[in-house]
Amino acid sequence: MPATVTIAPDDLRALAVAALTAAGAAQQHADWTADILVEGDLMGLGTHGVLRLLLYCERLGLGGIDGAATIAVERKAPSLALVDGDNGLGPAVAMSALEAGLAMVADTGIAYVGCRNSNHLGALAPYGLKACERGTVMIGGTNASTTIAPWGGREARLGNNPMTIAAPCPTAPHFLLDMAMSVAARGKIRQARDAGGSIPEGWAVDAAGKPTTDPVAALGGFLLPFGAHKGSGLSQAVDLLSGVLSGARFLTDITAWTDFPEQPSGTGHFFLLIDPRRLLGGEAYDAAVTRFRSLVQGTPAADPAQPVQLPGEREQRRRDKALREGIVLPGDLMAKIEALASGQAAP
Amino acid sequence: MPATVTIAPDDLRALAVAALTAAGAAQQHADWTADILVEGDLMGLGTHGVLRLLLYCERLGLGGIDGAATIAVERKAPSLALVDGDNGLGPAVAMSALEAGLAMVADTGIAYVGCRNSNHLGALAPYGLKACERGTVMIGGTNASTTIAPWGGREARLGNNPMTIAAPCPTAPHFLLDMAMSVAARGKIRQARDAGGSIPEGWAVDAAGKPTTDPVAALGGFLLPFGAHKGSGLSQAVDLLSGVLSGARFLTDITAWTDFPEQPSGTGHFFLLIDPRRLLGGEAYDAAVTRFRSLVQGTPAADPAQPVQLPGEREQRRRDKALREGIVLPGDLMAKIEALASGQAAP
Repeated sequence: MPATVTIAPDDLRALAVAALTAAGAAQQHADWTADILVEGDLMGLGTHGVLRLLLYCERLGLGGIDGAATIAVERKAPSLALVDGDNGLGPAVAMSALEAGLAMVADTGIAYVGCRNSNHLGALAPYGLKACERGTVMIGGTNASTTIAPWGGREARLGNNPMTIAAPCPTAPHFLLDMAMSVAARGKIRQARDAGGSIPEGWAVDAAGKPTTDPVAALGGFLLPFGAHKGSGLSQAVDLLSGVLSGARFLTDITAWTDFPEQPSGTGHFFLLIDPRRLLGGEAYDAAVTRFRSLVQGTPAADPAQPVQLPGEREQRRRDKALREGIVLPGDLMAKIEALASGQAAP
Repeated sequence: MPATVTIAPDDLRALAVAALTAAGAAQQHADWTADILVEGDLMGLGTHGVLRLLLYCERLGLGGIDGAATIAVERKAPSLALVDGDNGLGPAVAMSALEAGLAMVADTGIAYVGCRNSNHLGALAPYGLKACERGTVMIGGTNASTTIAPWGGREARLGNNPMTIAAPCPTAPHFLLDMAMSVAARGKIRQARDAGGSIPEGWAVDAAGKPTTDPVAALGGFLLPFGAHKGSGLSQAVDLLSGVLSGARFLTDITAWTDFPEQPSGTGHFFLLIDPRRLLGGEAYDAAVTRFRSLVQGTPAADPAQPVQLPGEREQRRRDKALREGIVLPGDLMAKIEALASGQAAP
């Protein structure tokens, strides 16, 4: 098996759709999910790309996710909606919400959409990019099962709830901030464990709440929020907007798919959308956001070889390259996806 | 002169109104501004309390702020408005916006209001508390003159743009996150300089972009964002929502009142407001947010003497105490405010 394989995005998307439908997903749900996961790979976010098909297909098979869920959008007001995901695939629930929100924005210029009864939705950046491509500012987020202690606590009661804030520019790259709330991702600690190494101090604490550089102890303990009380507070804020406001589960009520893949996660997400051109007019907004981007990008760099970039610029450049040259995936992952696509269990 | 003075909130508010009107502020603008600054002191946010009267009155006298500004609210859609502050007092501009936003929320359940041509608005937490007391979720923020370099840069092009996310509980304390984007506030570095001490590594870099523990070098350099690229990106996001979307100045275009007190700052603010009970119904929302608060507060504490608190809980407890027992201010500050209130220059 080759160490890496290069595949065209359309081919990867078709394989992903086949894997999901083979595991029982409805066509539209499979299409949305494949699209979001392939977008993750295009942006170089491999931990949130088609790698997740393994988990999604396993959970579809176990009944932990319902591939034929009836996703229902309920309008509460001209600019407010709640989506009941009926335990469907997270990207299908989230894309239903985003489409409903964008339709409301076209009408009223603003929308909040909350999702309940959902599952892991992939990376947030692809949703932010879609909003930008439709000319819309987005604040979005999702809650997640608990890996972080509230500041001053010694028990994980917060998820690593990512949030995205995206703003369209007249041409790409768009402003596309996408961040989780821990100092370092759990995946990086797993990598250190697998490599037999240690982790920097400040990433995590052990089960007793003591600082540790041992990745095994860290994985048995919990992650530290970035910015101490600030990241801890922001994680809670994202959960309020994703979980509480949508009627979803939140905090410790969310079921961890790592422990219970056969059970619904009950995850919540939200999208807040604004049409900036409705506020300012197209010309004024385009001029302002273009000047904003230039001022950031034109900052003298600490290292001249590393120009200052807009948040999400690196991901969008990777995406441009991968659209031209194909997506590079590990050979063993590719073999597993091909097996799933032909209706077999992943090897 | 006594080292500290204890004063009843109503008396302090009356003094603040007198100081502002003596400096040329219209009655309503003085009332709003006094209220916001006294709320800052009530919450223990002394750097954003009546101390700011000295600056506000100086700038009113110099013509840098227009105390008789015509603040204009322009509705762009049933849930969208822009406020032109006409270079008025920041709290007056922001309160005009908040009131307009709350009126829209009563109608549609959601609102975005952006402000341009404004000035320093005090602390954000008082606005968040007002939103909570009116049963409304708020995401709010303001931009500010530049003190932070974008991540990877060596020139200050970002403000320490604070943001607040607030959610009402059926009874206080409400969820009230209020945070700026630097690791440490500039005021703390000034304190270290005045005390002849040093600052921890990681707070700031010098003018050449090199890490420093010397507060003088730090004040001549720039602040570091919390969470490295995350705080840097979030500062930019707040500026997009406050400055770009409102048609205000942003990034390096904002005039620093520290350097040019006689000139308009051109600051922008925003408030995003949602009625959570419109989404969920009152009973379901109240039950969910109450459970959320209990789960956070009930987290086993790392130090049993320091129970885990909700963001903003400490500030709300301080406020309760100060409402009962009065506000404690430095005697020399009190003397200056009394002088301003009687129409004299601050001693």
